[in-house]
Amino acid sequence: MKPDFGLAFNEWTSLLGPARARRDEETIDRYARSTLPEGTTPKGVLYPSSTGEVQAIVTIARQAGISLYPISRGKNWGYGDACAVTHGQVILDLSGMNRILEVNRELAYAVIEPGVTQQQLYDYLQEQDIPLWFDCTGSGPEASIVGNTLERGFGHTPYGDHFLYSCGMEVVLGDGRLLKTGYGHYQEAKAAHVFKWALGPYLDGLFTQSNLGIVTKLGIWLIPKPECFTMFFLSMPDEDDLSRMVDALRPLKLRGQVKSLVHIGNDLRIISSFQRYPWQEAQGKTPLPDALRRGLRQKGGFGAWNISGAVYGSRQEIRVLRGEIRRALGGLGRVRFVGPRAQRLAKWLWEFLRRRGWKPELQTTLGTLVKVGGLLQGQPTDAFLYGTLWRMRAAEDPGSLDPLDNNVGLMWISPIMPMTGAAAQDLVQRITPIFTRFGFEPLITVSLITERAMVAVTTIAYDRSSPEETDRARQCYETLFLEIMRAGYAPYRASIASMAHLAEGSEVFWDVVHELKQTLDPGMVLARGRYDPVGVRKSSQ
Amino acid sequence: MKPDFGLAFNEWTSLLGPARARRDEETIDRYARSTLPEGTTPKGVLYPSSTGEVQAIVTIARQAGISLYPISRGKNWGYGDACAVTHGQVILDLSGMNRILEVNRELAYAVIEPGVTQQQLYDYLQEQDIPLWFDCTGSGPEASIVGNTLERGFGHTPYGDHFLYSCGMEVVLGDGRLLKTGYGHYQEAKAAHVFKWALGPYLDGLFTQSNLGIVTKLGIWLIPKPECFTMFFLSMPDEDDLSRMVDALRPLKLRGQVKSLVHIGNDLRIISSFQRYPWQEAQGKTPLPDALRRGLRQKGGFGAWNISGAVYGSRQEIRVLRGEIRRALGGLGRVRFVGPRAQRLAKWLWEFLRRRGWKPELQTTLGTLVKVGGLLQGQPTDAFLYGTLWRMRAAEDPGSLDPLDNNVGLMWISPIMPMTGAAAQDLVQRITPIFTRFGFEPLITVSLITERAMVAVTTIAYDRSSPEETDRARQCYETLFLEIMRAGYAPYRASIASMAHLAEGSEVFWDVVHELKQTLDPGMVLARGRYDPVGVRKSSQ
Repeated sequence: MKPDFGLAFNEWTSLLGPARARRDEETIDRYARSTLPEGTTPKGVLYPSSTGEVQAIVTIARQAGISLYPISRGKNWGYGDACAVTHGQVILDLSGMNRILEVNRELAYAVIEPGVTQQQLYDYLQEQDIPLWFDCTGSGPEASIVGNTLERGFGHTPYGDHFLYSCGMEVVLGDGRLLKTGYGHYQEAKAAHVFKWALGPYLDGLFTQSNLGIVTKLGIWLIPKPECFTMFFLSMPDEDDLSRMVDALRPLKLRGQVKSLVHIGNDLRIISSFQRYPWQEAQGKTPLPDALRRGLRQKGGFGAWNISGAVYGSRQEIRVLRGEIRRALGGLGRVRFVGPRAQRLAKWLWEFLRRRGWKPELQTTLGTLVKVGGLLQGQPTDAFLYGTLWRMRAAEDPGSLDPLDNNVGLMWISPIMPMTGAAAQDLVQRITPIFTRFGFEPLITVSLITERAMVAVTTIAYDRSSPEETDRARQCYETLFLEIMRAGYAPYRASIASMAHLAEGSEVFWDVVHELKQTLDPGMVLARGRYDPVGVRKSSQ
Repeated sequence: MKPDFGLAFNEWTSLLGPARARRDEETIDRYARSTLPEGTTPKGVLYPSSTGEVQAIVTIARQAGISLYPISRGKNWGYGDACAVTHGQVILDLSGMNRILEVNRELAYAVIEPGVTQQQLYDYLQEQDIPLWFDCTGSGPEASIVGNTLERGFGHTPYGDHFLYSCGMEVVLGDGRLLKTGYGHYQEAKAAHVFKWALGPYLDGLFTQSNLGIVTKLGIWLIPKPECFTMFFLSMPDEDDLSRMVDALRPLKLRGQVKSLVHIGNDLRIISSFQRYPWQEAQGKTPLPDALRRGLRQKGGFGAWNISGAVYGSRQEIRVLRGEIRRALGGLGRVRFVGPRAQRLAKWLWEFLRRRGWKPELQTTLGTLVKVGGLLQGQPTDAFLYGTLWRMRAAEDPGSLDPLDNNVGLMWISPIMPMTGAAAQDLVQRITPIFTRFGFEPLITVSLITERAMVAVTTIAYDRSSPEETDRARQCYETLFLEIMRAGYAPYRASIASMAHLAEGSEVFWDVVHELKQTLDPGMVLARGRYDPVGVRKSSQ
């Protein structure tokens, strides 16, 4: 069957009205933007406002043989933004489905649609005076909670592993059927959003990092606001110190004493979070000369590696946990704690200085502290988007921090490691020379995201206005990707630029994934190529 | 194609030798035993000793059109034992695949085969002096860890949710292919058993409570032995107190302060754990007369409902957590704590009394305390199998506690509830009259198994030597099952007696499960009917 786009588009327009079925140039161009060297161009964009409309859209797409590419809010920066994996798909933008359907105070969960943003849920909990937090990522107030969960993103609080703390999905399948997972498919189900595994095979995992269905509703667990919250920080001077840091932190994570994500940022990653590349001092050269790097590190008072994390609980619990942290990390250096009083003071001082425009450097430090603290308490912030501007050559700060508005070049690559110092060191030694070879700085954070695993989030920040630099960025990415796969540190998440290569060095797994695709979406309607390398290979043959 | 069992059996015999391919009457009879009113009779039993053999067996079965029914150790008592869902399948007994393939001390995990028993892993950790615990269930030393995990069973420690704390599977599919989940399918993967979700759709859930594959290898996470461990107990006198107990416990679970399973047993459940039904005092009548029940409760010093749980951590952490527990539960009654010193004392005293045969009642109390304490520290025990003898009429205690050796009648039904007092009360009020109507006692535990959900494990204990009582037990089970499903409290796990009814009151979900079955096992080779109600309906048409 030859796809008939014109016919399908007419039907979608009848269904949604012309304002919600778009194929004008401006819309197409907006959705074709990307932080990657190459985005993809869609054929059109649809804006459903209900599950019923999604089902109807899917049915039309199936009959016409057109591929739909669902996005929640399209903030998948550095991994493909709002772009489909291949050209010519129709974007299904779910941002209009943004209802908070339920918040259960007693059992601490919410049920939300894919368009709900981090800021929206935060505001709702504040306005309704509900003493529950949700975990949010550093990817900005306008990012979708459902979208991030389905990509298995993570945030900074004890509920940082978003997919783990989700429960109960509603999914539109490729033939338009509506599947409810967990206990949700039973009439009268009373435990639909409280018990993850339910009865029979656990299917929710199929709809994360996949193209097997469109999640239109999701239960997420919320954190009872703790009585007390204290941050901790520790820096070490040498690049080789990372290994000792990880080994010292591991018991705290394994024993469940530190439940927050523990973040270890290198100097460059921290410097880039509040200043731009020093083009002038570097005389336009890249990567950043060593002497300059050391100077910036010293000026800011950072280490080569810098730990931040938090503990939560009653006053007494916090006191004990501070002792445990000191006991575990004391051998590495001075652990600095920032408790509730110091947090309030920092916030007050920051605002005071800002109003007067005094002490810009102290302002920066205090601001970072306040924002990191906010994130560790589930408060959305766009502070960490600032880092995406690092390699921009224009002098001024732009009005918006949306990387797409600034034509920012940004690629993230996020290998997973077992939580050992040896693995961290091995990885850093493998990737650092690759960054340098292609003229980029290794912006690296190593985050302890579970009790046993950590992820290195590495950033290729490049100037997208320079075709030469863009090309180098692409090569750098490809080389890095090959290296981590070969060394056994596959990433926790893939970019649209790497979807085709996920099956390299693998056996059976991706064949099975493609067989599942053929079963659940025989018309290949949904998100062609997304986490389906076998499908990509087949369709390009 | 007509199944050709004789041909297949010859091929299996060539593959395994006659000792590991059995169809003699004695073997068949042993595997046909059940604690349910009706077991099923297999056609034969195969004993592979390697993954390669499992693959070869599956290939032969597929060619011959025979259904294989994998079991790990066959200790699925009260849910179907070692029996297939239907007659005439060939049991694939994996007990010979019992290697502990790896124990990683640093990252606290083990990789094991399905035949590994709780006792075996426990002994291994002891012998090697490895300071790690694993979570074990009360179902006895000889139960399989993998089998329980795939049924999504739970134990008593902070790692009680077995499937949650597993990571990385090796699975033989219905066509003989070997699928490795997690990162395991990548050559050189370094995080195969430390990061659960890996990359791409998360498939592991498909192989729990299903018939979609044979798991031949599993990673399980182990608990770093805590510095200190303290149990807590609280009893309340009235049946209506359950609701207040649950509401008072919920914040402790939600805030993560109590990480153990919290167990709330009713008087009957506790009495049955160390004595048999008082046939004489009851003059042979059932269910247990109220006056007798109250008498036994008073004599033992129990409440109508009895809480037990534990906290883990450093000495300082324990001290603080005791305070939190007292603060949360103090309004309900006296919380009794049993710390390390009291545990040692109890153990010493128990052994002292046993050697002399003194104070049998105190012995029982101390013994229970010691064994509950053991379980909360990951020590396997057969103490809780004693409860299965409750309704046996023979006076003596049997030599073995294996319910199958004693022809014990036992059915478990385990509805899940949201963790609210109202739900607990609602459920108990619905099921109690059903037990009574059919002449059984409501043996009930309510266990807080996650932060938001609890399970009521209810037992129908019956005398299998009485056909009349057996028939009543069956009716009682069917009525209970119908009631919990109708009321929205579907169970967390199903018995072979209820597999055909799982799709009642449900939409789409079980159709999708059956479509997945047709994809992953088109020959319908594996475990016909297991968690596949649509398949059952089709094959009986």
